[in-house]
Amino acid sequence: MKSTAYRVVRRTQTSSSLFPLFPNTLRYVYGKLVQYDGFERFEWKHSYSRVYEPQGKYSPEGIFMSFEHYNVEFRDRVKCISGIEGVPLSTQWGPQGYFYPIQIAQYGLSHYSKYLVDEKRTVSVLEDAESRDTARWTVLDPMDSQVDNVWDADAGSRVISFNSLDSSSGVNLPVGSKLFFLSLDLRFISNASITVVLEAKGKQPQLFFVHYVCSNTLISADGNEVFYGIGDQRSHWQTLSRDLSTDLHKGLALNRGRSKKSRPSLMRVVSLSLSGRGRVDNITVSSNSHLPQFHAAADWLVRHQDSRGGWPIHVERVLANGRLQLPPGWYSGMAQGQAMSLLVRAYSHTRNQGYLNAALRATALFDVASGNGGVLAKFADNYPWYEEYPTTPSCFVLNGFIYALIGLYDLQHTVTDDRGADASRLYASGMRSLKAMLPLFDTGSGSIYDLRHFTLGVAPNLARWDYHTTHINQLLLLATIDSDPLLSETASRWAGYMKGHRAPHN
Amino acid sequence: MKSTAYRVVRRTQTSSSLFPLFPNTLRYVYGKLVQYDGFERFEWKHSYSRVYEPQGKYSPEGIFMSFEHYNVEFRDRVKCISGIEGVPLSTQWGPQGYFYPIQIAQYGLSHYSKYLVDEKRTVSVLEDAESRDTARWTVLDPMDSQVDNVWDADAGSRVISFNSLDSSSGVNLPVGSKLFFLSLDLRFISNASITVVLEAKGKQPQLFFVHYVCSNTLISADGNEVFYGIGDQRSHWQTLSRDLSTDLHKGLALNRGRSKKSRPSLMRVVSLSLSGRGRVDNITVSSNSHLPQFHAAADWLVRHQDSRGGWPIHVERVLANGRLQLPPGWYSGMAQGQAMSLLVRAYSHTRNQGYLNAALRATALFDVASGNGGVLAKFADNYPWYEEYPTTPSCFVLNGFIYALIGLYDLQHTVTDDRGADASRLYASGMRSLKAMLPLFDTGSGSIYDLRHFTLGVAPNLARWDYHTTHINQLLLLATIDSDPLLSETASRWAGYMKGHRAPHN
Repeated sequence: MKSTAYRVVRRTQTSSSLFPLFPNTLRYVYGKLVQYDGFERFEWKHSYSRVYEPQGKYSPEGIFMSFEHYNVEFRDRVKCISGIEGVPLSTQWGPQGYFYPIQIAQYGLSHYSKYLVDEKRTVSVLEDAESRDTARWTVLDPMDSQVDNVWDADAGSRVISFNSLDSSSGVNLPVGSKLFFLSLDLRFISNASITVVLEAKGKQPQLFFVHYVCSNTLISADGNEVFYGIGDQRSHWQTLSRDLSTDLHKGLALNRGRSKKSRPSLMRVVSLSLSGRGRVDNITVSSNSHLPQFHAAADWLVRHQDSRGGWPIHVERVLANGRLQLPPGWYSGMAQGQAMSLLVRAYSHTRNQGYLNAALRATALFDVASGNGGVLAKFADNYPWYEEYPTTPSCFVLNGFIYALIGLYDLQHTVTDDRGADASRLYASGMRSLKAMLPLFDTGSGSIYDLRHFTLGVAPNLARWDYHTTHINQLLLLATIDSDPLLSETASRWAGYMKGHRAPHN
Repeated sequence: MKSTAYRVVRRTQTSSSLFPLFPNTLRYVYGKLVQYDGFERFEWKHSYSRVYEPQGKYSPEGIFMSFEHYNVEFRDRVKCISGIEGVPLSTQWGPQGYFYPIQIAQYGLSHYSKYLVDEKRTVSVLEDAESRDTARWTVLDPMDSQVDNVWDADAGSRVISFNSLDSSSGVNLPVGSKLFFLSLDLRFISNASITVVLEAKGKQPQLFFVHYVCSNTLISADGNEVFYGIGDQRSHWQTLSRDLSTDLHKGLALNRGRSKKSRPSLMRVVSLSLSGRGRVDNITVSSNSHLPQFHAAADWLVRHQDSRGGWPIHVERVLANGRLQLPPGWYSGMAQGQAMSLLVRAYSHTRNQGYLNAALRATALFDVASGNGGVLAKFADNYPWYEEYPTTPSCFVLNGFIYALIGLYDLQHTVTDDRGADASRLYASGMRSLKAMLPLFDTGSGSIYDLRHFTLGVAPNLARWDYHTTHINQLLLLATIDSDPLLSETASRWAGYMKGHRAPHN
């Protein structure tokens, strides 16, 4: 089978310039070098709390803010990457795990941004069936299992066919690679499964097993074995793309907790085995991959957009010690905006109108008041505000509002005809609110996360430093597309607060 | 002559309870013991930056906030107490000196509040002419000068008559007292003057001369001599009340600057001499006096209220590095409010309707927008705000607004009939604004002086600690008359900031 375009496009690209966007003002890089998965890695644990000076004008087709430094799936509050949907599940506000459109959009935007940055990528093709044999495969019990190299009319290429009556034996492909991102095309004919064997360092080398099985169970784990359901609808050719390291660690964390000590240091992929009955092709391992995750996120948004153009969030959200509540099914202006940013990029990258149409439909809720199930609040009955959390009374979260504005900008900048009129109007009126209200978030030594103190009459909810830096990064982005000095001056003053500068007193 | 009622009423009252209003939470008293004017004094230099927990419900007839601790005339920015008007002149924004209604109202309110507090008062009667002789007086040159004890029909009592052809000699009353507040009734027949001789401590005892002369010159000084013009309209009986220590020090400061070292340590009043032609009676010196200053301020407000009910301020005011300007002739919502608070107390104390009518007329400018010469601003086109400085754009000074609200409260609480309807309405809508907007002044570690950052898009203008404590004292006052927990909780949180408490971050 020919690989789909996006999987091959950057296969041979390498670059040593891992960090091209570091600003001159960034003097220290926080993080640490760690050894796992056979590589020495620099862990960007705090990378999203750094100020990144934009290198040029922001573009709706380019890197999203500084998201090339984000690692969404690494976060503890990501339960795992769904085997069926290919996107993360959040446990932030519900331990059961739920699809959170903001997290999914950020997952897609971070992988798109990483894709645009020249990251070194190494790919090893394990099997493309073009050799017309099965020389790489081993079969434990030929009475139970068999493997063949066949022509597949649907795929339009030669593929590997497997048939194993006993699910515990199966057919086996030795791997022996230090590359932990797996991709393969597959078509299951019966209830088949894929098992990847991984070896980790220890006093004695340890083996771990990651199983991808035909079920709708999200994830389970038992000892050294982790199971991901990849659904029971795999009878047509589809591509499965999995970050084996993430999949193993999320599985082990289920039972062992999330401490660093429970994280085995992976040495290599030992082998891959297939059981049941089906066909596979284009099996590769690579050091990383970003376009599959980007597309998985964009496709999820297209599939799950509802009739109001929104992505309802099916978990209760409680803020301000219970004084603000959103029952399950709420929409988020930030989710709508981040989805727009992702969908516009998916459209620009593929020219698939479906992505653009979804982005255009996503604006409708910006004209619906929070009290009526939309995301529109008004500050002092005057300034419209697109709410990350459309509570009653309103809470006016700053970073969520700016993400909504960036989404509207992306959309109105991409759609220059009449279809973009709503996005254009909403962006303009939102920017008017931002410019008027931004100073209200300034404490003279930091910034405030939201305006709940205004609506509830309580202490201001001060932004911790990583949200403060998010505010700065957002303002620096906006300052490249809007010349109002308020934006750049505020960003500069707020960056100064991180170095100990203070606003004057009278 | 009988003394006027208010000058005798507290003549014999003494009390050792100098500080009855100290809250339990006040652990330290800042200031220092100093020796001057023959007394050991505790200087309350920072007293108005202390938090004072109210001891009971605020009353429009009672102490004004914690103004019993204020010493308006002591401030460097007070040029002197006018000999004609009996009220302070400010040099805060204009070195020429000008009558600033806020300062005048605060002068009156502080003296009224001090009067209500049981301060020890010692009075020595130097001359009341009831002895029917002039035994206490000396005449240097009987050819030039004479002194008599006579019946005065206008005064309805015996008085001292003096006549001195040579203004350098005159008639003399030895004093020898350590009491530095002078009061006398006088009627000048020709161009007369009064000279007080004061002795100060030094390597060698030093003499100083304070002259009260028939002229319209405000103040002048030459060496050890200070001159106050008391006007040329003194042909009817009037009372002259002067704080000799303040008068001397303000005069010396004209030439010697304002440093502490230039302040002589007064030992005693040596003598009082009269020249020209006129009559005097009821000459006393006392340790302090407050009702004359209170009435001088209230009477000044009645005399100088204009046809719009306001007290125009005849000095340019420039704020925010020149970005906000008020040309001379502006009105201040704070001046209007503080005047109301003073006039209501003057009415309550005297039942003179003139005071109340002036207070009622003072509300009119609260309904006139800043742009039209009034004091009314609107925050976000929604919340009315009575501006201390009615600039365009608005600046929303918090403490000035609350003083305006307290004035409106005083008035609407005192006038319970229809005449108080405007004050009542203005107070209610102002309190709505205050409760809505108060959180916007909270930085999580202090308070903000105004909202210029909102209107100008600049850094917040943080309140220094003495304004922060003013905010707290104002909120504590309001909390005694309005049970909304926002007021008391904000005051409590803001007091916590002074002890290092901080609002939480997310």
